[in-house]
Amino acid sequence: MNELRFSGLLAPVITPFNKDLSANAEKLARHCRWLLDQGAGLAVFGTNSEANSLGTDEKITLLSQLIEAGIPAAEMMPGTGSCALTDSVKLTLHAVKAGCRGVLMLPPFYYKGVSDDGLFASYAEIIQRVADPKLQIYLYHIPQVTGVPLSLQLIERLVKEFPGTIAGIKDSSGDWKNTLAILQSRFDDFRVFCGSESFLLATLRNGGAGCISATANVNPAAIRRLYDNWQAANAEQLQSQLNDVRLIFQSMPMISGLKSATAQFSNDPDWLRVRPPLTPLAGAQQTQLAAQLAAVKFTMPGLNAQP
Amino acid sequence: MNELRFSGLLAPVITPFNKDLSANAEKLARHCRWLLDQGAGLAVFGTNSEANSLGTDEKITLLSQLIEAGIPAAEMMPGTGSCALTDSVKLTLHAVKAGCRGVLMLPPFYYKGVSDDGLFASYAEIIQRVADPKLQIYLYHIPQVTGVPLSLQLIERLVKEFPGTIAGIKDSSGDWKNTLAILQSRFDDFRVFCGSESFLLATLRNGGAGCISATANVNPAAIRRLYDNWQAANAEQLQSQLNDVRLIFQSMPMISGLKSATAQFSNDPDWLRVRPPLTPLAGAQQTQLAAQLAAVKFTMPGLNAQP
Repeated sequence: MNELRFSGLLAPVITPFNKDLSANAEKLARHCRWLLDQGAGLAVFGTNSEANSLGTDEKITLLSQLIEAGIPAAEMMPGTGSCALTDSVKLTLHAVKAGCRGVLMLPPFYYKGVSDDGLFASYAEIIQRVADPKLQIYLYHIPQVTGVPLSLQLIERLVKEFPGTIAGIKDSSGDWKNTLAILQSRFDDFRVFCGSESFLLATLRNGGAGCISATANVNPAAIRRLYDNWQAANAEQLQSQLNDVRLIFQSMPMISGLKSATAQFSNDPDWLRVRPPLTPLAGAQQTQLAAQLAAVKFTMPGLNAQP
Repeated sequence: MNELRFSGLLAPVITPFNKDLSANAEKLARHCRWLLDQGAGLAVFGTNSEANSLGTDEKITLLSQLIEAGIPAAEMMPGTGSCALTDSVKLTLHAVKAGCRGVLMLPPFYYKGVSDDGLFASYAEIIQRVADPKLQIYLYHIPQVTGVPLSLQLIERLVKEFPGTIAGIKDSSGDWKNTLAILQSRFDDFRVFCGSESFLLATLRNGGAGCISATANVNPAAIRRLYDNWQAANAEQLQSQLNDVRLIFQSMPMISGLKSATAQFSNDPDWLRVRPPLTPLAGAQQTQLAAQLAAVKFTMPGLNAQP
């Protein structure tokens, strides 16, 4: 068992933008500190980070800025998979050299209907070019966004060919049967993360490693509590409480909703900003979200206490 | 009528790769010269160029190399739309400053289910940042690949807001009803290109500007002949001959097939190379393609005569 591999809860950290839509590294570092305090690791540059609306160079700069701001690289699992082979290699190399304990890697997602051979070649080429034994890749399966699923056969082939490098997977398909099939494959020390805390208890009961979930940006402590107490008598109840919050955010454009809640609880409307093609929640939607959150007594404690 | 706007035939130029998968600029320039000689303009960095497997910096370098090699910028309509706003701006700026007469622009294609407002904001932000009256944008509608359709309402809104900049569209949906609806909107001097020569005659008969088609990489002269003679008595027959060749390439992974034919007719097996996640045609597929092409007496005349 590789103790360096991730387990537990990670947040695909939302990215705050300045007025000119550049990333605000200082504010991002502050949110990262809050997440760490709440027990969540940092899957920066995930889907919910709007990472695919950022250029590779922007992400490289931002990662360096976070580390300079004192965010421990060992707690970070940046998303580094891009459409372009060269971009994936460049960003992955930077992350590994910076000390990130793992990377979350989308398949190249522009071309559709590509073969498992082609996807295998893509991951293999990146691994060969990065050529660093410290590289730990967590595969990222989110077919409803990429249009490029990672089949169980492909996962198995990658694990067998690169057992020291292919460290796990985030299954964001929302298809529990698929997550279960991966879990039941029981690849050696392969860390399976569900992409939503709705499946956290089921994932842990089936030998999974934890979850990497959008809503960990706003509700990390409660999700972490279930992770820490999944064998406790009240686990089902903790799961049910998580589901109530999750459902609220799932009922609206997720990223804009997470940013709206963060803006509300940090008293910082700048958090509302998103990069196109996303749009912020309209005023009425913000009010509605705030009311829904109040109804379940949801808060984000300590958000303003971050330096 | 803006004489600077494109019409006619353009090829989304296939990209030759070296053994290390870097782009071979010299060979690309040679293919561009052949295409120009055959009557096709150059939609470099299109889907069929594997442009989305190339990083922004690679594309910037390659465009400069083509111009240095004597390929006229005015004949080029590079693809410049990326997932990331900043990448789209950077590449578009470079193309406009280099003298490209237009750019073909995908919407940001990672996030799905985005609103027309978000897509409008994306194009608007790029236009404002490039801030050059010479910028001519051809929208790129290819929903089966991007998962992000450009609605007729969005197109109309963009044309009305930026009439001097939004110059046309490539409709690669393969949905003739959609192409016809755009054509029937009759936006002022808006150039409608079909994405396959199968629709060329119908497009021209309905006031369209031409076509930007993958198979223009291998069959440019014949497609150009129909463009030049669409009102002639034998137009239907010319269309039918084009369809025969198109169907052959459509029956296999298109990009790998185009490269296989180019490798065959230029006696240069290096043309077979593709970047992952694509895979080259297997040997048996190459043989089968060659036989199918021989059956319709297909050739690529003059391909080896290029300097």
